[in-house]
Amino acid sequence: MKFDMSRYLSILTWGRAYNRSALTNDLVAALIVTIMLIPQSLAYALLAGLPPEAGLYASIVPIMLYAVFGTSRALAVGPVAVVSLMTAAALSNIVEQGTMGYAVAALSLAGLSGAILLAMGLFRLGFIANFLSHPVIAGFITASGIIIAASQLKHILGIDAHGHNLLELVISLASHLGEINWITAIIGVLATGFLFWVRKGLKPLLQNLGLSSGLTGVLVKTGPVAVVVLTTLAVWLFGLADKGVKIVGEVPQSLPPLTLPSFSPDLLGQLLLPAFLISIIGFVESISVAQTLAAKKRQRIDPDQELIGLGAANIGASLTGGFPVTGGFSRSVVNFDAGAETPAAGAFTAIGLAIAALALTPLTYFLPKATLAATIIVAVLSLVDFSILKRSWTYSKADFTAVFATILLTLALGVEAGVSAGVGLSILLHLYKSSKPHIAEVGQVPGTEHFRNILRHDVLTDSNIVTLRVDESLYFANARYLEDKIHNRVAGDKNIRHVILQCSAINEIDLSALESLEAINERLHEMDVCLHLSEVKGPVMDRLQREHFLSELTGQVFLSQFDAVKTLKSVAA
Amino acid sequence: MKFDMSRYLSILTWGRAYNRSALTNDLVAALIVTIMLIPQSLAYALLAGLPPEAGLYASIVPIMLYAVFGTSRALAVGPVAVVSLMTAAALSNIVEQGTMGYAVAALSLAGLSGAILLAMGLFRLGFIANFLSHPVIAGFITASGIIIAASQLKHILGIDAHGHNLLELVISLASHLGEINWITAIIGVLATGFLFWVRKGLKPLLQNLGLSSGLTGVLVKTGPVAVVVLTTLAVWLFGLADKGVKIVGEVPQSLPPLTLPSFSPDLLGQLLLPAFLISIIGFVESISVAQTLAAKKRQRIDPDQELIGLGAANIGASLTGGFPVTGGFSRSVVNFDAGAETPAAGAFTAIGLAIAALALTPLTYFLPKATLAATIIVAVLSLVDFSILKRSWTYSKADFTAVFATILLTLALGVEAGVSAGVGLSILLHLYKSSKPHIAEVGQVPGTEHFRNILRHDVLTDSNIVTLRVDESLYFANARYLEDKIHNRVAGDKNIRHVILQCSAINEIDLSALESLEAINERLHEMDVCLHLSEVKGPVMDRLQREHFLSELTGQVFLSQFDAVKTLKSVAA
Repeated sequence: MKFDMSRYLSILTWGRAYNRSALTNDLVAALIVTIMLIPQSLAYALLAGLPPEAGLYASIVPIMLYAVFGTSRALAVGPVAVVSLMTAAALSNIVEQGTMGYAVAALSLAGLSGAILLAMGLFRLGFIANFLSHPVIAGFITASGIIIAASQLKHILGIDAHGHNLLELVISLASHLGEINWITAIIGVLATGFLFWVRKGLKPLLQNLGLSSGLTGVLVKTGPVAVVVLTTLAVWLFGLADKGVKIVGEVPQSLPPLTLPSFSPDLLGQLLLPAFLISIIGFVESISVAQTLAAKKRQRIDPDQELIGLGAANIGASLTGGFPVTGGFSRSVVNFDAGAETPAAGAFTAIGLAIAALALTPLTYFLPKATLAATIIVAVLSLVDFSILKRSWTYSKADFTAVFATILLTLALGVEAGVSAGVGLSILLHLYKSSKPHIAEVGQVPGTEHFRNILRHDVLTDSNIVTLRVDESLYFANARYLEDKIHNRVAGDKNIRHVILQCSAINEIDLSALESLEAINERLHEMDVCLHLSEVKGPVMDRLQREHFLSELTGQVFLSQFDAVKTLKSVAA
Repeated sequence: MKFDMSRYLSILTWGRAYNRSALTNDLVAALIVTIMLIPQSLAYALLAGLPPEAGLYASIVPIMLYAVFGTSRALAVGPVAVVSLMTAAALSNIVEQGTMGYAVAALSLAGLSGAILLAMGLFRLGFIANFLSHPVIAGFITASGIIIAASQLKHILGIDAHGHNLLELVISLASHLGEINWITAIIGVLATGFLFWVRKGLKPLLQNLGLSSGLTGVLVKTGPVAVVVLTTLAVWLFGLADKGVKIVGEVPQSLPPLTLPSFSPDLLGQLLLPAFLISIIGFVESISVAQTLAAKKRQRIDPDQELIGLGAANIGASLTGGFPVTGGFSRSVVNFDAGAETPAAGAFTAIGLAIAALALTPLTYFLPKATLAATIIVAVLSLVDFSILKRSWTYSKADFTAVFATILLTLALGVEAGVSAGVGLSILLHLYKSSKPHIAEVGQVPGTEHFRNILRHDVLTDSNIVTLRVDESLYFANARYLEDKIHNRVAGDKNIRHVILQCSAINEIDLSALESLEAINERLHEMDVCLHLSEVKGPVMDRLQREHFLSELTGQVFLSQFDAVKTLKSVAA
C-alpha cells in the first residue's frame, strides 16, 4: 500500500481546491468569530482557573493545527465550557490555583490529552468514545452546566468560594454571603440580565425588524462583546476597581509563548485519568458538532482523523501556554453561519486572535471578572436541559437509570465521578439486559410456514416438540441463562422428545455459548431428548463447523423452522 | 402471594418423600465419601495455610446446612483446591500465616463470602456469575492448578518457600533447593508417583479385572487413603519425624468449635474483593457440577437457591472454625457414583467426619505433610488443561485473547489479578465486537422475495435505493458507528434517494440509538435522501411508537423488505 500523505494531512485535500470565493467567505467568517472569541477565551481561562491570556493562547496555535489535520470544514477549536471545568477540577486536586505549578500542570494536561487523542487516532480507537451513551452525555452536560454556573456566582457577587461539585459550591457560597461586594453584584446581575435578554428578547426583535436569521444569530452571539465594552468603560470611568470590583488587570502583550509541559511521571500519573476523560468528552462534543455541520453540506467526517486533528491541537496548546481544547458548539455554529468554507477560516481566526493578544489586551485591563462570569453563566445555562430525564423515563428505564445517576453523581461528587459512573452504569445495564435475553417458545401460525410466540398468538404446537427462539446473540453472559431455561422447560415435562433452537436472531455464538450448547445437548441426551437447530446464519454456521459440536449434536440442523417441524413430525408419525 | 417456605428450605421438598431405600443408598454413599474426605480435608486446610483440623471443621456444618438449603441431590460441599488457594492468597496479603489473626481472618473471609452469596441468592443476582466466560474459567482453573502444584513442592521437598504466583514460587523454591530433606523428598516423590499410578495405571487394571466402572472409580478415588495409611505407618515405625520429616502433629480431638469471625471494618474492607471473587468462582464451580449431575437424573437446579445453600454453608463454616467452602467436583462425583439419592447423604457424611474429628485425629499425628502435598498435586494436575488455548485459537480469537491473558496473568500476578483481568477483558472484547456490528448492504435475489448481501450473492440493486441490514441490536456503543457507516455510504454517491434499514436482526434500540436514528434521518434529509425502515420487530416497534421518531421519519416503515423495494421503485417509476 502506498503511503498516502493526504490521509493524515487533510490540508492537502481542501488546499488544492482553494480559490478566491472561498477566501473571501473564510475571511468574513474569521472576523466575526474572532470578535466573539476574545471575551469567550478570557472567560473560559477564568473558569479553568488560569490567567486570562491562557484563553487567547489556547485559541491560536490549536486552531491552526486543527486546520492542517482536521477533516471538518467548519469546526472551530479552542477552550470550551465543560472541558475548562474538567480542567479546573483535575488540576485543583493536585496543585494550588494561581501558582506557577498550576499553569504547568494545565500544559501537561493538554499535552497528555493530546497524546491520548493522537494515539487513539493512529490506532483507530475512536470507537472507545461510543461507550458514552447519548443520555449519559446529555445528563453530564446538564449537570456540568449547573456546576459551572454555580462556580461563577462568586465572581458575580464579588466573594470567595470554592468547590468542584454543587454541594461544596453551595456551602462555600452560603458561608461567604456576608462579604458581597454590591457594586460587583450590580454589574454582574445587570450583565447577566442583559445577556439573557439578548438571547431571548433581542433575537425576536431583530427578526421582526426583518433581518435574516443568519445575521440575527451572529448579532446575538456578539452580545457578549457589547457587555464587555460597556462594563469595562463603566469600571474605567467611575474608578470602580478601587471600590473592590475585581478586574482582569494586566495581561501581557505577546504572541503565544513557547512553553514546555512537565514530564514528571508523578504528575502525569495523577493527570492520566482526567486527561483520558477530557479527551473522550472533548472528542464526543467535537465530533457531534462536526458531523451535524458536515451533513448540511454532504461532507464526510473521518472520526479517526478528527482524533488526530484534536490531538495535534491539544499538543499545540501544551507548547504555547494553553490548556485542553476541543471543537466548541457555539463558535463552530457561528463560524458555519458566517459562511466559513474551509479550515482556512480557522487559520484566519487564529491570526485575528494573535493580533488581539499582541495589541488589544490593554483594552481589557478594566474588564470586570463579573462580566466574564456573566457570559459564562448565560452560555452554559443553555446547556442545561432536564428533558432527557422525562424522555428516557418514557422510552427506557435502563437509559433513565444511567442518566439519573450521571446527573446526581456529577452534581454531588463532581465531573470525573459523574461521567465515570454514567459510563460504567450504562455498560452494566446493557450487559444485564443481554444476559437475560428474550426467549420465546414458538408455534406454527395455522396455514402458514411462520412461527410465532405461543404467548402472543394462536399457534399449533406438538407435545413432543418444543421450539425456542432466542432473540439475542449467544455469548458468555447469557449462555448459562439459556442452559437454565432449556433445562427447566424440559425437566418438568416428560413428553418432550425434541428441542429445536430457532437461531434466526443469533448473530454470534462465542466459545462459552458453544460449550453451553454442548452441555445442553449432552444433558438433553441424558433425558432422552434430541436437540435441533434451525435457521442458523451463514457466519455462525461457518464457525460451528470448525468444532465437533455439529457431529455430536443429537439432532439435525434445519434450513428453516418449517422444515424442522415437518421432518420431526413425519418421523414421529 | 402466599409465602412458600419450601422455596427457601429445599429439605421440605425432598424430605417428604424420604424412604428406607433412599436411606440405605445415602448411608453407603456417605461412608465412601467420608473416607475420601478425611485426607482431602486435611490437605486443603494445609493449602489454605490453616491447621489441618480446619479442613475437617469446614466439611461438617457446611455440608449439613447445604443439605437443608441446597437444591442439588448429589453436591458435596467443603474445601476445594482453587478456593483454598484463593483463601491463602487473600489472607497472606493481610495477616501472617500461622498466627491467630490468620485463622480469624479465614473465618471472616468465609462469613463475608457467605453473606455475599446469600445476598446474591435473595436478590436473585446469580446472573453476575455469568460474566465469567467458560474459556476464562478454564484458563483460570488451569493456571490455578499449576500454582497450587508449585506451592506444594516445598512440602514434597521438605523446604521453605513462599509466593502466590508462579514466578515468586519458582524463585523461592530455587533459592532453598540446598535445604532439601531427602527422606521427605523420597516419601513425597513415592507418594506422588503412587497416586499418579492409581489414577493412570490402576484404573485400567481394575477394569480389566472386570470391576464395574462405578466401583473402579470409587476405589481409585480412595487411593489417597492408602497412601495416607502407608506413609503414616512408615513415619511412625522408623521414627522419621525425628529426622526432619514434617508431620501433621497434634490435632485437637473435638467437634467443630463455635467461633466468631471478626467484624473489624478494616479487615472486612480488605477482604471484600477477595470474598467476592471467591464467591463467584466457588458458585460457578459448584453450579456447573450440580447441573451436570442433576441432568443425569432429569432433576432441576435453581441457581438462586444454590446461592442461598452455598451462602448458608459458608456462614456455617465461619461460625465453626472453618474457611471458605463450595461444591467440589471430585467429592460430588464420588457421592453421585456411590449412589447418593438426597442431600441426606451429605448430612451422614458430616456425621462421619464429626466422628473422625472427635476420635480419629490421633491417627493422623505421624501423617507426613509431604503425603498431603502429594494428594493435592495429583488432584490439581488433573485440572490443568491447556487444550482450551488451542480450541479457542481455532474457534474465536477474542476468546483466545481472554483465556491467554487469564492464564498468563494468573501465573504471573496471582489468582485475583488473573481472574479479574480475564473477566474485564472478555467483557471489553464483547463490547468491542458489538460496537462494530456486521452491516451488510443487501440486494434482491432474482426471482425471489429474499434479500442477501451484495458482496456474497448475485443480487438486483437500484442506484437510487440503498438497503443496509444491521446484524446486531442498536445501542449506545454501536449507534455512532451506524451514523458513520450510513453517512459515508451516502455522502459519496449523489444518486441515492432512499436508504432502507432492514431491521430483522435488531432486537433492541436504546435511547442513544434512537437519537442516532434521528440524527441519521435529519442528516439524510439535509442531503435530500429519505430514510425507511423494514421488518421492525414488534417490541422494538412498540418502543419507537412512544417517541416522535416515526412521525419525523422522512420515509416509511415497511412490513417486509420486499414491500419496501417494490413500493419505492413504483414511486420512482
